[in-house]
Amino acid sequence: MTSITSFHPPVRTLMGPGPSDVNPRVLEALARPTIGHLDPAFVGMMDETKELLKYAFQTENKLTMPVSAPGSAGMETCFSNLIEPGEKVIVCQNGVFGGRMKENVERCGGVAVMVEDAWGTAVSVDKVEAALKANSDAKIVAFVHAETSTGVVSDAQALVALAHQHDCLTIVDAVTSLGGSPLKVDEWDIDAIYSGTQKCLSCTPGISPVSFNERAIAKIQNRKTKVQSWFMDLNLVMDYWGSGGQRSYHHTAPVNALYGLHESLVILQEEGLEKSWDRHVANHEGLKAGIEAMGLSFFVAEEDRLPQLNAIQFPEGTDEAKVRSELLNRYSLEIGAGLGPMAGKIWRIGLMGFASNQKNVLHCLGALDAVLSEMGADIQSGKAVSAAMKVFS
Amino acid sequence: MTSITSFHPPVRTLMGPGPSDVNPRVLEALARPTIGHLDPAFVGMMDETKELLKYAFQTENKLTMPVSAPGSAGMETCFSNLIEPGEKVIVCQNGVFGGRMKENVERCGGVAVMVEDAWGTAVSVDKVEAALKANSDAKIVAFVHAETSTGVVSDAQALVALAHQHDCLTIVDAVTSLGGSPLKVDEWDIDAIYSGTQKCLSCTPGISPVSFNERAIAKIQNRKTKVQSWFMDLNLVMDYWGSGGQRSYHHTAPVNALYGLHESLVILQEEGLEKSWDRHVANHEGLKAGIEAMGLSFFVAEEDRLPQLNAIQFPEGTDEAKVRSELLNRYSLEIGAGLGPMAGKIWRIGLMGFASNQKNVLHCLGALDAVLSEMGADIQSGKAVSAAMKVFS
Repeated sequence: MTSITSFHPPVRTLMGPGPSDVNPRVLEALARPTIGHLDPAFVGMMDETKELLKYAFQTENKLTMPVSAPGSAGMETCFSNLIEPGEKVIVCQNGVFGGRMKENVERCGGVAVMVEDAWGTAVSVDKVEAALKANSDAKIVAFVHAETSTGVVSDAQALVALAHQHDCLTIVDAVTSLGGSPLKVDEWDIDAIYSGTQKCLSCTPGISPVSFNERAIAKIQNRKTKVQSWFMDLNLVMDYWGSGGQRSYHHTAPVNALYGLHESLVILQEEGLEKSWDRHVANHEGLKAGIEAMGLSFFVAEEDRLPQLNAIQFPEGTDEAKVRSELLNRYSLEIGAGLGPMAGKIWRIGLMGFASNQKNVLHCLGALDAVLSEMGADIQSGKAVSAAMKVFS
Repeated sequence: MTSITSFHPPVRTLMGPGPSDVNPRVLEALARPTIGHLDPAFVGMMDETKELLKYAFQTENKLTMPVSAPGSAGMETCFSNLIEPGEKVIVCQNGVFGGRMKENVERCGGVAVMVEDAWGTAVSVDKVEAALKANSDAKIVAFVHAETSTGVVSDAQALVALAHQHDCLTIVDAVTSLGGSPLKVDEWDIDAIYSGTQKCLSCTPGISPVSFNERAIAKIQNRKTKVQSWFMDLNLVMDYWGSGGQRSYHHTAPVNALYGLHESLVILQEEGLEKSWDRHVANHEGLKAGIEAMGLSFFVAEEDRLPQLNAIQFPEGTDEAKVRSELLNRYSLEIGAGLGPMAGKIWRIGLMGFASNQKNVLHCLGALDAVLSEMGADIQSGKAVSAAMKVFS
């Protein structure tokens, strides 16, 4: 084997769909000394992390905790614990992640009834109602609150209320909304929810915060079949993350990654959740002014847009991959490509968590303006940065 | 919510069953700047990590990579990909982790045929042979190479050879052996293997290195049913970690945790695998001399002992939990309790990875001697440290 040496990553500005820029305090926290996962000091930190997550989710749910794996595993934790074989699940799809939900339902032995909306539009409450009426035996409604593939927010509160009218539980994907957009688990009465650390929490990727209310827990505790995944079985994980009492060993927690999550949640608490939501809007407004001054447009209608994830249409004929590689190589700036059917059609510019700041907005607009102008794209050059500055001042 | 502040863990010496002491270079690596999981620089690091893991596992297997979750998920990745519903699996149990394998087999829809050996003894090759003869329709033999619950090593090479004579694939748990004890995936012809980062690799917990040979890959690619877990489906994960060509997005990799793993593997390569194995033996010899000088004994027969995980029997009547808490509170030293039926019967003293050093051996012996003497236990006081020093000098 050729000798391989230590890896020193380049310093990037991360304005894609995630991971987004990590707060330096989180990076520092990751490097703190490792302790045992059953150490009393660690157990204290676990309890604090649960409290901080309850604040971030705006819930009093006792079963609120981080899954020891990325958001995809948080998603699967929800589906594999809540679905029993043969159960029907209404799955709303308006982007990539609704499609992944379908995969999850089917692999858990469930039957997915798809409610499809065009990519770039919100989930239609009316279509979901029709599906619920046509499938009175449905047990669960699953939808994505904030679609990372398009930057669309759907009306979680209305969808949950509707599901409950039809005696369905709800599973909500909040990977991109947690910390960045209004999300109120208790007020909206969401039954099961999962998120990720690498978006609006300003943390590194690899952990998935989840929360389950009493209705969801009752279903999990009264399952007729075992959860098909041992690693994700909440009946076992609950005993490890459970409130008070003896902790029983399940798996070895990712100790240092959890230091990072804890620190990111302390930072969120210091800023205040509402102020974080407002900051995401304010920086989006700056970006929007610049993008529009350049003559570019948004893919999503204004009322459905997530401030933290901006789907941008580029001038026809643009070599969009070249633009992204120029941004990366010359400005060390990462923006996202389109995913799935959106590939080659949009860019996804993230303003998430620590990355949602004025400096990033101006850096991105300036770099994009320069690269597009040089490539001879049909844009209004030299106007973007000052348009954003005007919003900020 | 009460205001929660940054968490600063105590500085421990970790000599339990894992996590073990982390090399400071690994902690520093965790704090390096986060980059995107599709960044060309990150993809280069992924390729290096695969090469370094191939060295650690002593294999040329192309499908050698880290699963983005703890060892338990690595275990489940092996079982859920290799078992199809209805298939019979010979599961060897001589400790906690064989029992967990049974759970995995059954949750994957397989039928587990148990081969049981007493805790603290190695897996009996003869019993496995009898089980294979009695179950000619078995498809897989699964066993633990290094039982973390007892500190026993089993003869992986013989067990694999036997399984292959009966046309079975093999799944091997190497969580505690990788990096610490001789393990030769290609020479022993192991088909599927999983490990953890928090034992003899001197890395933080949270990632599970795995490796699959061509025989195992063929079985995965020719499955009749989909793998029940989307997150762990290697048909999808392979495309993300695949060698060369376009990477397709599957999940967001735990970027910073992988920096840590990469650094730990660079350190292993610098030391050399054989030298690491030898160091684990040498420090075990020092600990053994001290433990025996104190009048304590080992739970496992000498020929079956893992040097990196020492199961120690304490004097009858010892309040063993008090000893452990005194060690933790007064010496900031963590040793492990017994797990499952071994609770209250043994301590598990780990000398794994970075924690396997002379300073730790002497610290542990000195602290244990002092605490046991103070509690009036029936031991030979004041002899342990010098006995170990004699071995080291």
